[in-house]
Amino acid sequence: MKNQIRVYAPATVANVACGFDILGFAVAAPGDEVVLRKRNQPGIVITKITGEQGQLPIEPEKNTAGVSVLQLLQHLGEQQGFEIELHKKMPLGSGLGSSAASSVASVFAANELLGNPLSREALLPFALEGERVACGAAHADNAAPALYGGFVLIRSYDPLDVIRIPTPKTLHCTLIHPHIEVRTEDARKILKKEILFKDAIVQWGNIAGLIAGLMLPDYELIRRSLQDVIIEPVRSILIPHFQETKQAALESGALGCSISGSGPSMFALSLSLRTAQKVGDAMQKCLENIEIESDVYISKINQEGPRILADGAA
Amino acid sequence: MKNQIRVYAPATVANVACGFDILGFAVAAPGDEVVLRKRNQPGIVITKITGEQGQLPIEPEKNTAGVSVLQLLQHLGEQQGFEIELHKKMPLGSGLGSSAASSVASVFAANELLGNPLSREALLPFALEGERVACGAAHADNAAPALYGGFVLIRSYDPLDVIRIPTPKTLHCTLIHPHIEVRTEDARKILKKEILFKDAIVQWGNIAGLIAGLMLPDYELIRRSLQDVIIEPVRSILIPHFQETKQAALESGALGCSISGSGPSMFALSLSLRTAQKVGDAMQKCLENIEIESDVYISKINQEGPRILADGAA
Repeated sequence: MKNQIRVYAPATVANVACGFDILGFAVAAPGDEVVLRKRNQPGIVITKITGEQGQLPIEPEKNTAGVSVLQLLQHLGEQQGFEIELHKKMPLGSGLGSSAASSVASVFAANELLGNPLSREALLPFALEGERVACGAAHADNAAPALYGGFVLIRSYDPLDVIRIPTPKTLHCTLIHPHIEVRTEDARKILKKEILFKDAIVQWGNIAGLIAGLMLPDYELIRRSLQDVIIEPVRSILIPHFQETKQAALESGALGCSISGSGPSMFALSLSLRTAQKVGDAMQKCLENIEIESDVYISKINQEGPRILADGAA
Repeated sequence: MKNQIRVYAPATVANVACGFDILGFAVAAPGDEVVLRKRNQPGIVITKITGEQGQLPIEPEKNTAGVSVLQLLQHLGEQQGFEIELHKKMPLGSGLGSSAASSVASVFAANELLGNPLSREALLPFALEGERVACGAAHADNAAPALYGGFVLIRSYDPLDVIRIPTPKTLHCTLIHPHIEVRTEDARKILKKEILFKDAIVQWGNIAGLIAGLMLPDYELIRRSLQDVIIEPVRSILIPHFQETKQAALESGALGCSISGSGPSMFALSLSLRTAQKVGDAMQKCLENIEIESDVYISKINQEGPRILADGAA
């Protein structure tokens, strides 16, 4: 029986231009890592958090990873306790699904150490409890793709209806995280409660096109569909030089480019590693022009969700 | 060289619950028929219209079939003239895509008699000119599925972007046409210019689910996705006993049920002919209870678009 496990779970891009609140995908990098260790007594102890400059609470019931595992144990009526080490490998509050990566890695690791009593699908509600602690709402458009890999559709929240969308293997993602702060709360607040009917029609034409484009696959259709006429025009105001940076991505050959989650990170999709790198360089240069530093991550779409990095007996 | 041809083109269901303005599908029946005959002189003459009690104009430049063929000939710089017979086999202004069926049958027939100078895809703009005459706008969500068969997505109108959605072969459609009048203009007018953002999110979750459901195929996903929280609640007010009739369809086993086009016809999708018939009976009975007569049509999804019924030398 394994006593310890190290699990990686991926960063994720939610909203994906025309898929506000209902679509997300996982990237191969970056991602968070957790180490779970069985304890000889019940309860969760977070023994270490690295990579986040003391921003995350160490109390399990306030920590996204802690809450997820606590909820899982409670559901299973399980007395086993765990030590959790949390290694943050991506910026917090950046629109890259950082909290979802931690909660997904944690519940996946706990389920493994318990001998997999639950299916992967059944783990989602516990990861969502972690999201609730981190974001105030149990949004699934980061946690579901982090858990399943690929593109994932959240057709409905009530009841929760999660559908894996077959994802073409050739897509590469460029993520850029400008070193500015956009609070998720602010990004939510500036959205209007009412929108134009004609804009909504354009938007649902595009999400329908994007789903068809991914499934066919038809890359030109994906390109034409990666447009957001409702949220991006409002939220991009919070990201300095957004239009110029997006334009740089498109001119460098990206299929499309928009805000990742609620920002300030941006994502671009390309058809090759080479293009994705060129896109990243161009976007970074564009932000440098206005003296904003940024991190760039280039990777393929993650197709598998969390991954076991190491396990062993204590 | 053929001098005469008889072509059938299918009725179509536009909007398809969550796909307002962007999705339509063709049914195997009913459908309109046109007979085209080469003339020895240029110009179009409509020699006969049956099945419509004198409601349609006989002047080619005012008639949806006439306009479509005139535009096609003009585009080709073609001097060949045609006689057109139009045999309406479905009710007009009923939400079944009657004008689209006539214009699609006509341009398809003309293209055939001219030796197919244009691809099927290239015929769409001319059929849309016919739609413009009939409806005041060049909506493509009837004409495109009538021309291509199956489910067709109109991702965008500007520029026109039409995508065929692979369509599962097992779907059967029940169409019911209650003998009441709903003017397309009125059906348009009662829709609001602004909608709730949260409703739009539900709607684009459902259209994404419906496209994925059709392509996977996943019939339970199609069932869950065939919902319209924006247009149906408003337009159904114009159709007496709508809720009861829809309920009767669902209780009889339909995957989903909504308004066909702008009504007053309703459609339901089912997984077998038997269920589709049961659904039709239940819906018709429901309308009989309030003394509204109706026509019911049961058929598979049309997968091929227009069909040549007969051709020959003069």
